[in-house]
Amino acid sequence: MADLLLGKPVGDALSEKTAALAEELTAQGIQPTLAIVRVGERPDDLSYERGACKRAEALGIAVRKFLLPEDASQDDVLAAIAQVNDDASIHGCLMFRPLPKGIDEAAVCNALDPAKDVDGITAGSLAGVFMDTGVGFPPCTAQACVEILDHYGFDVEGKSVAVVGRSLVIGKPVAMMLLARNATVTLCHSRSRELPTICREADIVVYATGRPRAYSLEHFSGGQTVLDVGINVDEEGNLCGDVDFAAAEPVVGAITPVPRGVGSVTTAVLMRHVVEAAVACK
Amino acid sequence: MADLLLGKPVGDALSEKTAALAEELTAQGIQPTLAIVRVGERPDDLSYERGACKRAEALGIAVRKFLLPEDASQDDVLAAIAQVNDDASIHGCLMFRPLPKGIDEAAVCNALDPAKDVDGITAGSLAGVFMDTGVGFPPCTAQACVEILDHYGFDVEGKSVAVVGRSLVIGKPVAMMLLARNATVTLCHSRSRELPTICREADIVVYATGRPRAYSLEHFSGGQTVLDVGINVDEEGNLCGDVDFAAAEPVVGAITPVPRGVGSVTTAVLMRHVVEAAVACK
Repeated sequence: MADLLLGKPVGDALSEKTAALAEELTAQGIQPTLAIVRVGERPDDLSYERGACKRAEALGIAVRKFLLPEDASQDDVLAAIAQVNDDASIHGCLMFRPLPKGIDEAAVCNALDPAKDVDGITAGSLAGVFMDTGVGFPPCTAQACVEILDHYGFDVEGKSVAVVGRSLVIGKPVAMMLLARNATVTLCHSRSRELPTICREADIVVYATGRPRAYSLEHFSGGQTVLDVGINVDEEGNLCGDVDFAAAEPVVGAITPVPRGVGSVTTAVLMRHVVEAAVACK
Repeated sequence: MADLLLGKPVGDALSEKTAALAEELTAQGIQPTLAIVRVGERPDDLSYERGACKRAEALGIAVRKFLLPEDASQDDVLAAIAQVNDDASIHGCLMFRPLPKGIDEAAVCNALDPAKDVDGITAGSLAGVFMDTGVGFPPCTAQACVEILDHYGFDVEGKSVAVVGRSLVIGKPVAMMLLARNATVTLCHSRSRELPTICREADIVVYATGRPRAYSLEHFSGGQTVLDVGINVDEEGNLCGDVDFAAAEPVVGAITPVPRGVGSVTTAVLMRHVVEAAVACK
């Protein structure tokens, strides 16, 4: 029976500090404010947005929504980003991705004022993660993984970590963040040979490929720690992770469930970034 | 007996294309030009500089030197970078590092015009390597490793690569470049546990720590490919790599020697970048 690494206690501990900082700022006449830019109405975006708004409200953070129709043009999205940039009362921006086809996502991301890039989508923030300079904010989900390991007392120094998936939202940045904490990090992906062996031999494995229940018994070994970043909907309409939880849980030492795992820490990280961005522009 | 992966044929093949491009540019009235910024007179800088100037001359690339005394201030170095930036006849800049103590190296690096950053020292170029966008030039030594693998026909797709050393000059960027070619990449360093095992089990190992002959028999296995990026001087004053070559050569399948290995490709990569930068600003 694995230890369940629930996200709630991690998010709550983070949020406690965030709420205190938000209160201080508000007392000084600064209302920490998050802009949400959403194009279209994808169910998972809407679901995340509801969670984010709820948490923002609880923490005393205001939310301003910039909602665009699914057929919005690149210029429409760029115009929304420009509004966010120009509005001094907005401290951070969450933009849902992927953007609809035909929009140059990299161009839109890089149009955002780096100081408001609380979800690590600009080249400047990602360079900060890669170079380990502390410049900018890392992507929230990548940082959520690190916060969970910290909260539950896992010291990664010298440990072997396998990261499965190499996106700029999770895989690559979390690899760099754990490397900065002196883990030995292996970046794996769909072309990796002998993936089950690599995963079994690692002390910690981060699964972040968005493939529902794709990682089964052959990937797990006793005592290891598993972070499951995937949030997928299975054929019966149930939420599930990238990991076959039923297969992993009796074997591994500790695992984040889906739901109630990594995902529930991400919005807490986002809110902390918003408040930190508000502090930085004082 | 391992195959010797000599750098010269790789550098020559690269240089052939570079010379042709340089000739075309010159015929159009554009003299491809490299600026070299050097602070002090470290012997290894001087040695690299001689090699670079010789190769530049052979390829029809002009060199402009900005030489500063060892006690130069940060403002002095920034002034040299500003001159490089403002001079439209200069297409690329090589600045020797590390800079003397007391100078904020990151600030100096980021002062360079990204378009002239032919050695991947700015945050923008490193973000390009991390994000795999093709923006900017990667650090020359990291690219030299990739050029050697390409030239000798090693397809890294699906292969396991261990990178020992995590500098921004070699370790991290070469890891990202090989990941982009679908290798499974493990980033190792001085805190990594069981490093010999990790190295033995990899198909390809890149050693880049600057520790003379630090990697001995226990790190090698039959058939694997070894790239030795280290350029060190041993106690007898002889050049040597990070790898104990005498121990590795009878065991591994292929290895770059030191000297005559990776180092001899780096200046060829640098010159190609200069010419590409000159083409880009036409």
